[in-house]
Amino acid sequence: MPGSSNELQLDKIAVVGSGAVGGYFGGCLAAAGKDVHFLLRSDYDAIMASGLRIQREHAPEIHLKSVQGYRSTAEIGHSDLVIVALKTTQNRLLSELLPPLIGPNTVVLTLQNGLGNVEYLEELFGTGRVLGALVYMGINRISAGSIRNFTKTGGYLTLGEPDGPATPRVHLLRQLFAAGQIDCRPVDDLQEALWRKLIWNVPFNGLAIAAGGITCDQILDSPELADLGISLMKELQAAAQALGRTIPDSFIEAQYPFTRPLGAYKPSSLVDFLAGREVEVESIWGEPLRRGQQLGVPMPHLATLYALLQKLGQPKSS
Amino acid sequence: MPGSSNELQLDKIAVVGSGAVGGYFGGCLAAAGKDVHFLLRSDYDAIMASGLRIQREHAPEIHLKSVQGYRSTAEIGHSDLVIVALKTTQNRLLSELLPPLIGPNTVVLTLQNGLGNVEYLEELFGTGRVLGALVYMGINRISAGSIRNFTKTGGYLTLGEPDGPATPRVHLLRQLFAAGQIDCRPVDDLQEALWRKLIWNVPFNGLAIAAGGITCDQILDSPELADLGISLMKELQAAAQALGRTIPDSFIEAQYPFTRPLGAYKPSSLVDFLAGREVEVESIWGEPLRRGQQLGVPMPHLATLYALLQKLGQPKSS
Repeated sequence: MPGSSNELQLDKIAVVGSGAVGGYFGGCLAAAGKDVHFLLRSDYDAIMASGLRIQREHAPEIHLKSVQGYRSTAEIGHSDLVIVALKTTQNRLLSELLPPLIGPNTVVLTLQNGLGNVEYLEELFGTGRVLGALVYMGINRISAGSIRNFTKTGGYLTLGEPDGPATPRVHLLRQLFAAGQIDCRPVDDLQEALWRKLIWNVPFNGLAIAAGGITCDQILDSPELADLGISLMKELQAAAQALGRTIPDSFIEAQYPFTRPLGAYKPSSLVDFLAGREVEVESIWGEPLRRGQQLGVPMPHLATLYALLQKLGQPKSS
Repeated sequence: MPGSSNELQLDKIAVVGSGAVGGYFGGCLAAAGKDVHFLLRSDYDAIMASGLRIQREHAPEIHLKSVQGYRSTAEIGHSDLVIVALKTTQNRLLSELLPPLIGPNTVVLTLQNGLGNVEYLEELFGTGRVLGALVYMGINRISAGSIRNFTKTGGYLTLGEPDGPATPRVHLLRQLFAAGQIDCRPVDDLQEALWRKLIWNVPFNGLAIAAGGITCDQILDSPELADLGISLMKELQAAAQALGRTIPDSFIEAQYPFTRPLGAYKPSSLVDFLAGREVEVESIWGEPLRRGQQLGVPMPHLATLYALLQKLGQPKSS
């Protein structure tokens, strides 16, 4: 198994998808002295000229004056750890982007949204080298080379093996992120963690778009939309149960009290939608629907939302 | 019963809601020499100055140079027949608008969309005087005083008693409309006719809006939206069945072959939506949902669409 603990090196790190999320995690690790190599595209010139700035509510600003940026992964070459932070709408690019980075012991960590990303990377590069993490923090790209984590507490990552409890390499990754001042929490069941995250993302990201571009408080203030949100959560809960993951009712009941203080918050998919960018429809809505339906779980509310979002989530030519 | 055949007069006709539909039917009747009185609001000045023009694909243009238009129903007074063609979003106005028109023998005919209109008028003015009709033609208001029926064949009305088979007065109304060159078809079960019409209106009007403002062909071209449309139709079929109305599968199966030739057709609710007008959400989606749910029929696809349309269908302040 690549990256088993007795041989694991995490010295050379590559970041693919250097938008808000990739820039943030790569930048935090680079600021901690780690050897981080960024694949850059549209922001290449700006970042190579002026570096990378990271604003944080919970900690001082980081200014990386010099960034190891590249226009291609071939220039980066084999890496010990590849952090994948591409939008899932771009997943089709990974089969070309990643191979130059993958050596025999390379570990691939996806920070991407929704379901199916770990499995897709395993299809491309084999099982045993892919790990998944979920980002519980709000990170925005303010401008080229400028990123902000606006979560007051800094937020956290959950990180785990695709199938089974946390291994020693999960804990080594936790230590790596800790060095970069990132709270990383190992989980023993990544699949359950993914479904738990969907229980918020599916209704809030989805209804915010489908109801015409509204914020979280407007969803909660509409009795019909709030009811619909609960129906969506229950369908996901049932699908997770069919996969052997018990998500208690109390978890669903906690979502609205958690969300209310966010006020007029725009879920990340709404931000994409309003900017005319393609929305991550397949990983957040399509894949959970397909998995639930394959197991015979009725998901009519999700099916309706998904069909609409497939149309709504297409990129707008501006 | 007001308007029972041996005493029925249909001499003095009032039209409330003189937009496209009211203007069309009132105009056709007036062109046939009937005594038609129009309640006019925003188009009063234009119509009083220049009259009413009605373009038809299937028949020569009508130009009514002189129109009996009024700014209030009090000026019209008691009428034999009141044709209600207001948008259902304005139904709350009827309790003030209609009373001056209603004499002891007045018949009220609603041409409005969706469910609940006959019942609402019966609540206001008693049972026995209200009839319902469904408009199967495409009618647009081109400008103030200018209306177009763009249905190649001219289209038709179905008209019936709220509860029970067609009565002699239904046939008298058919003759009245026939004099105005309007194909009016008596039905023996208005409720079934209403649910049959919803089987088209609920999916096509609803998905056209909720999927971001798309036309009928785009709904049919999306496998997911087309599936969703069928699911919505089946929920309505089940609700109608619970009400004792059997709508055969063949009726559902005929909807897409019927719709395909319409091409990039914009359903009327989409036209309202795109113009920023309030959409008739309650009569087309809300009321059928409530009736089905009251009878214990699961309607999750409709519930989802309705919750979204409640937000999407609100009037836009421009």
